[in-house]
This record gives sequence, C-alpha cells and structure tokens, in this order.
Amino acid sequence: MNILRKILPIWLIDYQRKNLVPDLTAGVIFTVLVIPQSLAYALLAGLPPQVGLYISIFPVIAYAIWGSSMVQAVGPVAITAIMTFTVLSPIALPGSPEYIILAASLSLISGALLLIFGVLRLGFLSQLLSRPVISGFISGASVLIVISQLKSLLGISTPSEDTWAILAALLQQLPHSHGATLVIGLSALVTLIFARYGLASILTQLGYSRERAAFVVRITPLLVVLISTVMVIHFNLDGQVGVSVVGSLVEGLPGFTFFLPSYSAIKTLEVPALLMAVIGMVQGISMAQALAIKRQERIDANAELVGLGASNLVAAFYGGMPTGGGVSRSAVNVASGAQTPLASIVSAIAMIVIVVGAAHWFARLPLAVLAANIVVAAISMVDIKAFRNAWAYDRADALSLLGAAFGVIIFGLEGGIVLGVSLSLATLLFRASIPHLAVVGRISGSEHFRNVVRHDVETLPGVLLLRIDESLFFGNLSAVESRITLELTKVPDIHEVVLIMSAVNMVDTTAMEVLTELNRDLAARGIRLHLAEIKGPVQDRLSHSPLWESLSGQVFFSANAAFEALLHKNDAAKWETSL
Amino acid sequence: MNILRKILPIWLIDYQRKNLVPDLTAGVIFTVLVIPQSLAYALLAGLPPQVGLYISIFPVIAYAIWGSSMVQAVGPVAITAIMTFTVLSPIALPGSPEYIILAASLSLISGALLLIFGVLRLGFLSQLLSRPVISGFISGASVLIVISQLKSLLGISTPSEDTWAILAALLQQLPHSHGATLVIGLSALVTLIFARYGLASILTQLGYSRERAAFVVRITPLLVVLISTVMVIHFNLDGQVGVSVVGSLVEGLPGFTFFLPSYSAIKTLEVPALLMAVIGMVQGISMAQALAIKRQERIDANAELVGLGASNLVAAFYGGMPTGGGVSRSAVNVASGAQTPLASIVSAIAMIVIVVGAAHWFARLPLAVLAANIVVAAISMVDIKAFRNAWAYDRADALSLLGAAFGVIIFGLEGGIVLGVSLSLATLLFRASIPHLAVVGRISGSEHFRNVVRHDVETLPGVLLLRIDESLFFGNLSAVESRITLELTKVPDIHEVVLIMSAVNMVDTTAMEVLTELNRDLAARGIRLHLAEIKGPVQDRLSHSPLWESLSGQVFFSANAAFEALLHKNDAAKWETSL
Repeated sequence: MNILRKILPIWLIDYQRKNLVPDLTAGVIFTVLVIPQSLAYALLAGLPPQVGLYISIFPVIAYAIWGSSMVQAVGPVAITAIMTFTVLSPIALPGSPEYIILAASLSLISGALLLIFGVLRLGFLSQLLSRPVISGFISGASVLIVISQLKSLLGISTPSEDTWAILAALLQQLPHSHGATLVIGLSALVTLIFARYGLASILTQLGYSRERAAFVVRITPLLVVLISTVMVIHFNLDGQVGVSVVGSLVEGLPGFTFFLPSYSAIKTLEVPALLMAVIGMVQGISMAQALAIKRQERIDANAELVGLGASNLVAAFYGGMPTGGGVSRSAVNVASGAQTPLASIVSAIAMIVIVVGAAHWFARLPLAVLAANIVVAAISMVDIKAFRNAWAYDRADALSLLGAAFGVIIFGLEGGIVLGVSLSLATLLFRASIPHLAVVGRISGSEHFRNVVRHDVETLPGVLLLRIDESLFFGNLSAVESRITLELTKVPDIHEVVLIMSAVNMVDTTAMEVLTELNRDLAARGIRLHLAEIKGPVQDRLSHSPLWESLSGQVFFSANAAFEALLHKNDAAKWETSL
Repeated sequence: MNILRKILPIWLIDYQRKNLVPDLTAGVIFTVLVIPQSLAYALLAGLPPQVGLYISIFPVIAYAIWGSSMVQAVGPVAITAIMTFTVLSPIALPGSPEYIILAASLSLISGALLLIFGVLRLGFLSQLLSRPVISGFISGASVLIVISQLKSLLGISTPSEDTWAILAALLQQLPHSHGATLVIGLSALVTLIFARYGLASILTQLGYSRERAAFVVRITPLLVVLISTVMVIHFNLDGQVGVSVVGSLVEGLPGFTFFLPSYSAIKTLEVPALLMAVIGMVQGISMAQALAIKRQERIDANAELVGLGASNLVAAFYGGMPTGGGVSRSAVNVASGAQTPLASIVSAIAMIVIVVGAAHWFARLPLAVLAANIVVAAISMVDIKAFRNAWAYDRADALSLLGAAFGVIIFGLEGGIVLGVSLSLATLLFRASIPHLAVVGRISGSEHFRNVVRHDVETLPGVLLLRIDESLFFGNLSAVESRITLELTKVPDIHEVVLIMSAVNMVDTTAMEVLTELNRDLAARGIRLHLAEIKGPVQDRLSHSPLWESLSGQVFFSANAAFEALLHKNDAAKWETSL
C-alpha cells in the first residue's frame, strides 16, 4: 500500500465512489465539446489540425497523473498556440516537416524547463508577474490572435504571416474577399457571439433552467461546426465554390516518436521556450489556483509545474505541440461536471476513439468556422474590465497593464512580456524606494504611538521618535537617512533619535551598514541613536553586526519603554539644570 | 541677485571667506598629486596619456558648477577607464584615431544618459544595486585591472588585450620578461605597497604627527615617479636598455572638438554606455553621499547625476575620455584640504599650467611605474572585508557579492553587473514573496497583541487574528492566502478571520483582487473576513475597491476593537445557545 501511495496520484488513492459517474460522463461530454477548439488551436499554431487531437490524449494523462489541480484541463490552448506560431513562422514554413520538428522541440524544451522549475521548487517565480501585467499580456496576445484569424474568416490570402503584413493585406484585399467564405465565416461569428453573450439570458427568460441554458450555450460551437460541415458536403462548397476546409485528417494514432532536438534548434528556441515556460507557468498556476479556491481545494504550485512539464514533454514525443492550462478548456471541463482528473483520463480515452474512428468527419469542416471559433474565444480574453478596475484603483498598475498589452501588439510576445515584467519590477522598486515613515508621539494616557501629523499626541523635546513601516533593504535605506537628516534640520536641538522598528522584518547588509554609518555620524554630532520594538529574527541578526557593538544609544523593548526612559532622562536633565 | 542665484552654483553664492585659503592651496596640491594617476588611467583606458590631464580641466569645472557634492573629485578614474578599455578594445585598436573617437562617443552617450537620468529625477534608480553587489563588481573589476597591468609591470608583450590571453601569455613568457622593466616595476610596486600599508605607522612611531605622516604617504607615488624618471634620463634606460616609457606628450591645450557620433557608433555603444552611466551613477552618488555624511552635508542625487552628466559631455568634446567620481581622487582632494568645489576649479586652472608648460617632464616616465601605481590602487579596491562582513551577517548578500565579483572576472564587466543586479532583485523578490505573518492574541489585561507562538496570550475560540507585517503586492499575496488556508485546516471551526493590517502600507491591484476573491470564498464557507488597523492611505484606496463593497465582515479601528467586538459576539452566541 505504501508503495502504491508513492507511485499513484493522491486523488486516485483517495478516490471517492460518488465521483465516478460524474467523472465518466464529464470526460465524454468534454471530449466532444473541445474537438473544434482542439483542431482550431493546432491550425493557429501552424500545425496540421489532427495534432490538436493527438495532444489531447497522452499529454492530458501525464498532467492527470502529476499535476495537482483537480479540474484544470490541459491541452492545446490559444496563448501557447499563438506563441508557437509567432516563434516558429519566421524560421520555418508553417506545416513543413522542419516546422513540425521545431514545434515538437519547443514543446520538449519548455516542458523540460517547467519540470526543472518544479523540481527546484521555483513555483514562487510565477509571482514575478502581477495580475495587471498578465491581463495586459493576454489581451495583447488575443488581439494578435484575432488579427491572425481575419484572413481565414474573410477569405483573403496574405503574402506573409507577419501581423502587420496581414493587416496591410486585409485593408488592400477586403474588396476582393471570397464571398462564400465571408458569408460562412461571418454567420458563424455572429452565431457564436450571440450564443456567448445573448443566448443564455433569452433561454432562461423562455423558462429554461440555468444549467440547461448553459449547456445549450456550450454545445453551440459544436452545432455550428456540424451544420457548416453538412452544408459544405451538401452543396460541395469546397470543391465548386472554393471554400477552404480542414482537409484530409490523418486517421489513427501516431506512434510515439522519440527524438532529441539539434544543438542549433536548442540555441534558436531556448529564449522562446523559456518565455513559453514562464507564461505557461503563470497561466497554469493562476488558473489552477482560481479553480482550487472555488472548490475549496489547495494546489501545490511546484506539483503544478511538474504536471505541466510532464504534459509538454509527452506532447513533444506524442503529437508535437506545446500544451497549457486553458481558461475555456477548464471552464468546459467544470461545466461538464468533472470532479477529479479521472474525467481527463476518460476524455483522453474518448479522444483515442475519435482519432481512430471519427477524425474524417471533420475533413470538410470550413476553416472560416474554426477561425470564427478562435476569434470569439480571443475576444472573450480581451479584458477591458481589468483595465478599468486597475485604472480606478491604482494608476501605476493600469499603466503596467497597458504597457504589456501594447508591448505585445507592437513588439510581439517577447517584447511585451519583457516590457510588462520590467514595468512590474520598476513599480515595485519605485514604491519600495519610498518607505512609509512617520514621526510619532504618544497618545495621552495610553501606550499607543501615532503619527504626529494625524493625531494629537505627546512628544518629548529634543527626542525624535521615527517609526519605520517597512523592511529595510538596499533600495530604501537612503530614504530613511534623508528623512532623519531632514527632521534634524527642521528641529535643530534634537539629541536623541529613536527608530521604532515594529514593522521591520528584515534589515539587509546594505541597510545594516548604512545604519551603522548613520549611528557613527549622529554620534559625532552628539546625537544618540536608539532602537525600539525590534522583532526577534531581526534582533538575532543585528546583535551580531557592527551596528550593535557601536550603537550610541539603547535598545528598548517597546516604543513606550523608550518614551518613559527618555522622559525621565529629560526630567533628570531639567532637574540638574535647575539646581 | 535673484538671477545670479539661479545661474551660479549655491556653494559660490554662499561662499565663506574662511574657506578661500584652504581651497586655493588644496587645488594646487591636489593637481600635483593626481598627475601620475591621471596619466595612468588614460593609458589604462587605451588612450594617449595626456588625455588623462585634459579631462582633468573643463570636465572638472563642469562638475564643480552642476554637481552637488562639496568635495567629490571627478576626473579619470580606474573603473571608468577599465570599462572604456574592455568595451572598445574588441572593436578598435587602442590608441588609433578610430579608438579615440569611439572613446569620446562613449563619454558623450553616457554623459547624455546621466544628464537625462538627472533631469528625469531617476536618482532613485541608483538603489537598484545593493552594496554587496557594488562591492563585488568593484573587486572583480579591480582584479581585471591588475591583470591588465601585469604585462607593463613585468615587461612582457602579449598578442591580445583579452584578459585570458594576457594571463596565458604571462605564464608562458614570464621567464623571458624584460629584466630592467621588471626591476623598475617591482621596486615601484614594493615601495608603493609599503608606503600605503606600512609607512604611516612607522613615521608616527618616529614622532611624525598623523597629518605629516599622511602627507608623506600621499606624495610617495609622486616621488617614485620623479625618481624613476630621473633614473631613466640619467642611465638612458629607454634608449639603450629598452624600458618602455610614456613617450612624447602633446603639449598645450587641445581645441574644443565638437562632433556627433555616427549612427553605427551609437548602436554599438548604447548598451556599454548605459552600463557605464549606471555604474557611474551608483559610484558617483554613493561616493558623494559617503563624503557628505562625513562632513554633515547633504547631496541631491539628481543634481549629482546632472553634474556627472555635464562632466562627461564636456569630456567628450574636450579630451575624449569618460570621467567619474573617484574614491582615491576624492580622498586626495579631502586630504589636500579642499572645502568647496572652488578647490576643483583651482586644480583645473593649475592643470592648464601643467598641460601647457610641463607635460614634457613626464615623457620619460617608465610605464612600469605607472602600472605599479594602478596595481596598488586596484589592490586597495579589492574589498575582502566586505565579503567577510556580508557572510557573517547575511549569506544571500554575500553570495550576491561573490556572484558579481566572479561574474565580472569570468564574463566581463557587463555580464558581472547583469548577474549582480539579477541576484539582488532575485533575493529581494524571494524575500518579499515570503511575507512575515503572525497569528496573534491579546496579552492579558492590555491592548497589546503578540504572536501566539512567542507569547502567552488570550485568544477567542473560532476567531483567527492574523497580523500581516508587510505591504501586500503581487509577489506575496498568495503566501498570505496559503497561510489563511493552512490555519483554517488546522482549526476547522473558525468562523471569523481578522486581518490586522497595521504594517501594510500598500495593497496593489493584484493583492486587492486576491483579497476580494478570498473574502468571497470564505463567505461561501460561512467564514467572515474582517480588517483591522488599516492605515489611512491604504483605507482611502481600498474604500473605492470591490473588496470594500463585498467585505463579509467589518472594518475595525484597532485589533483590540475587533477583539472586544468578537468577544461580545461570542458571549452573545453562547448566551443564545444556553437559552
């Protein structure tokens, strides 16, 4: 049993029987619902459509075994697909054998990186990106996705796959667009947008239950796919009229292809793969966390990384396209009723059946319909509300969001993420470089100390009580120093400075050295430096530092102890003077 | 008068007469003392030696006018010189016309960047680098400087200027070194090391005053230069024996050369110039600050940047080598008795006299002696003590120091600084991602709340009081969330969670959103979330956020108010149950 506990995933060992039927049915429903988007994202990535189905099999099982989320659905997702396309389309022809091997290499390298991140327990690195930056990045990438799909949707051919070339070609060729494709694409688009944003409320008004209405909304994309395919077949739209369709889908399971990427492929792909791993990490972990919170479960960020890494490694050898944790995919999974990763395993098995026996059904599906599917998914990812909220709450965060979004649209995915991370870190450092400091006094008749500016408090003549409300590190110590100097010039007869360190959790080497120098320089001017309310761990460390040995004043347990001691000293001094 | 106040530097308007004589004498003494190092650093930068004298004239005056430090001496410095050399020697032959124009361009671009930093008030960016990282960087660069000088010192010729090539050549050719050069170089080196580390204490034991001993120490390099030059002239060591000397120095003032760097030069130099500006900024500001603290003056970091930028811009057009604020240069200035920037202006005028009338005196100065000067200066910059102190106080900081030092030695200056900054930021983020949190209770009979682990305190059943000791931002909120989840699993019957926010100075958008979600999820589980002791600015912002509208619990003025309210609620509940 103990060995089993180590080998098998916990969810399987602790599997509750009541989840079995929901998981089985959810797995089957989910599979049918995600077929259109799986095909679409493979095309978006510049790969043959069946690849989207392939990587919905064994990579999904790998994540089910090693991941830590109960209901996150991993597979082909929009962000990973567009990243694959933007990275690889400049160096190889989409769909070519070279391109396919590069896509698999990308999956392999980013999977290996994710696995390494997980094993090294670097999950905390996913916090390098703030939510506004992630939101901006995803919105920018969604705009890129919409642009990339416009040509399929409108029946226009463009000479290059570059975003700006597509936009320019669209403007020139819009009058020459392919009529039937345009009609199919726009009808599908309008239907899907209506289904997503209007249908549910109409259905509930018509007396449908909320669950049934949601179900109808979810199957609409599949219905659009079915109807359009039937129309193509019936009117022979692909043959006579020239509407582009998915084309022949290779049926049957592909073998497990083991390969090692070439050295030059690794050199070319290492930066994009790293970026992809980071984005995959952030999206996967935040998605898993959001789902876990709703379900009152916990996830382990590092196990999540191992799961995502394993999924991508398997995807490299079996299918050849990077996978990720998807927003819409996971939403479909939850809506289908999944309770545990067993649902994903069931869906992988169902997908094997589709791939082996039913893939040819999708051969005459019009590309314009898939493009409409992708566009609707992408539009729903553009998060205007996040910008509005950030703007209302905190301008700096809103600007980071805009920076990431426009960075992606203008400079591409890598430029956008670099810009976004830089903006996040710059905001953080800028804020941290202005620590909150308050000159405090005692609230009469209590042991509470409050800001002299905001409250009516007692102060001692010649004594400066300065509360430091932040950990001290290389980035903010000079601000503390400047503030003390400023207060000393404001009130020239100060001879005691007390630093109240109740909120200081860390004093790094730079800060300790600067404090030591400050103590020495104040002492040279006849001013004593005292410390009060130092936290245990900070005191443990400081007590072995040069500051401790050379401190001109005392260390007090509390601000009040300092106040009392200096009050009596003042009184004594007064008494001496009056003698 | 008001117009004068705006045009003239403040130190000149408020000039005190008592400083006049010290400034005049200091200016003259300083000039004589820094001649050897000025020549040496120009050679170190791969430029003709007289350039070191040229940039000791107008760039010095520019800094005197626009800088904010009273006694910092700006001019040719070791770090800037080695950076110039490492950047330019791979792309042009040192000393060639192309090299000289590139050096001037480097000075121009980094000067312009410094000026822009200053005008945009980006002085706070100098805090991007922690002291251990700066110390590691300077130590690593000093090792590079020593290595670069070994060939001049030992009389060996190397095929390339690359550090590793020099080391390899040294090992091979050591037996074939030039005997006379070796003798002169090593004698100078031993004398200078003895002067720096042993002479002062011997002289004071012999009855010299400390000031006189220090003066003798300071003039030793000049004496070594004079004696070695006289020996070269007397024995014709450069002609017959082949000892390398400085060679003909162009006498007289060069004209003011206006030029604009070519586009390709800008593209090549933009990254090195930025790095140079950043290093110059950090070194200049921290040096100026250290000097100001000792003299109980204040500096303005942004004015410092403007001063350094102006100095480099002038240096580009007049001399053509980047300048910086130097440790040893400033030390000489202070030791000479300088009180205000007037001393620097006097020294610039004295330098004009030297350049016009006395430069040829230094033509037969042996290079080995200058190399010995540089090596001693570089050795004194290797700061082993900083590493020992950092190691004793904080291992993470000590590792950043080592990373920067070995980064510089192994990957060069750029690699080292990038590694150092990354290590600083990574340490910061890692620490920030683990916020200090404490479950607290009330100390009986008081209004004080302390950690339940460390103190004997009162707690309320079903109530979790969690004190957050850090500002909340994207990097640490998930740790807060995990902690709450953990506490809730430890004590399952908790129905009230109070977050005590006395130490929270900022809640960024990500943190606010996560708190809002946490509040919603806790509410769904029948647990109310309360907030207590929110600071004014934080409350102003939060009160317009979704968190405020949806908060399931209350906002309390203090932890004690929350405790009392929940105590009475508990009592009421008990009373109800007992009915």
